[in-house]
Amino acid sequence: MRRREITFRQAARDDLPSVVRMLAEDELGSGRENYQEPLPESYYSAFEQIDADPNHELIVAECDGEVIGTLHLMFLPSISFQGGLRAQIESVRIDGRLRGQGIGREIMQWTIERAKRRGAHVVQLTTDTSRADAHRFYQKLGFKSSHLGMKLSLK
Amino acid sequence: MRRREITFRQAARDDLPSVVRMLAEDELGSGRENYQEPLPESYYSAFEQIDADPNHELIVAECDGEVIGTLHLMFLPSISFQGGLRAQIESVRIDGRLRGQGIGREIMQWTIERAKRRGAHVVQLTTDTSRADAHRFYQKLGFKSSHLGMKLSLK
Repeated sequence: MRRREITFRQAARDDLPSVVRMLAEDELGSGRENYQEPLPESYYSAFEQIDADPNHELIVAECDGEVIGTLHLMFLPSISFQGGLRAQIESVRIDGRLRGQGIGREIMQWTIERAKRRGAHVVQLTTDTSRADAHRFYQKLGFKSSHLGMKLSLK
Repeated sequence: MRRREITFRQAARDDLPSVVRMLAEDELGSGRENYQEPLPESYYSAFEQIDADPNHELIVAECDGEVIGTLHLMFLPSISFQGGLRAQIESVRIDGRLRGQGIGREIMQWTIERAKRRGAHVVQLTTDTSRADAHRFYQKLGFKSSHLGMKLSLK
């Protein structure tokens, strides 16, 4: 049976509960998100900032009117690489009930095309060292593990 | 002898040749930058975008009226971490003639304080896997190597 069509678009405010649900159902995300109805105001406040900034795009994948995937695409101007624009991806999630159907690949391919169209010279992302599946997934899409991702928590 | 005082500030347009010189003198940077007088227009165009965006700060370290260090600090709104603000650092460089004097440490500490004041919950960066010195440097500042940094070149 042919899989139903998936469409991609920028998230609206009303999509936020679906986005946060997917962030929270993830193994690493469950300890740091706070998914409840209504959502804590901090999520809406971050959404407003993202939505108002043309260099940020919160993307959702939709199938049959339901949000089934999300990622946050950002465009970062930079002096390095002769003033080259970087595209960066954060917070990639696919609905847990729909994994293994190629949806992640589809949303990433769409996003890479979008980054090209906006003139980025690179797409960059970091993934937790514990996510071996994610590393293979990105390698298959052509990503090279060239860097160490380092974080300093300020809390 | 006491080292002269170093001050930190946002870069002005006139600082751009000094910034690009430091990016270009770096081993990895030399192959991808184009340092010449006058600088290629692409550098100025990127500077204008950075300068106009309050979420981007191109920082320079100055000593005796001379620019001796630079980094690009950016603040990234995010849905994850309950709508938490991330600080990200790119393109850290210290003038090659002044390495080993603690200037890198000083500019990083200043930047971490700035990220705290602006309410970021994390400071994140990636460094090329070949830069073993840089890994130790960031670890001493408290950074954890928790992630893989992956890049897909679009050129």
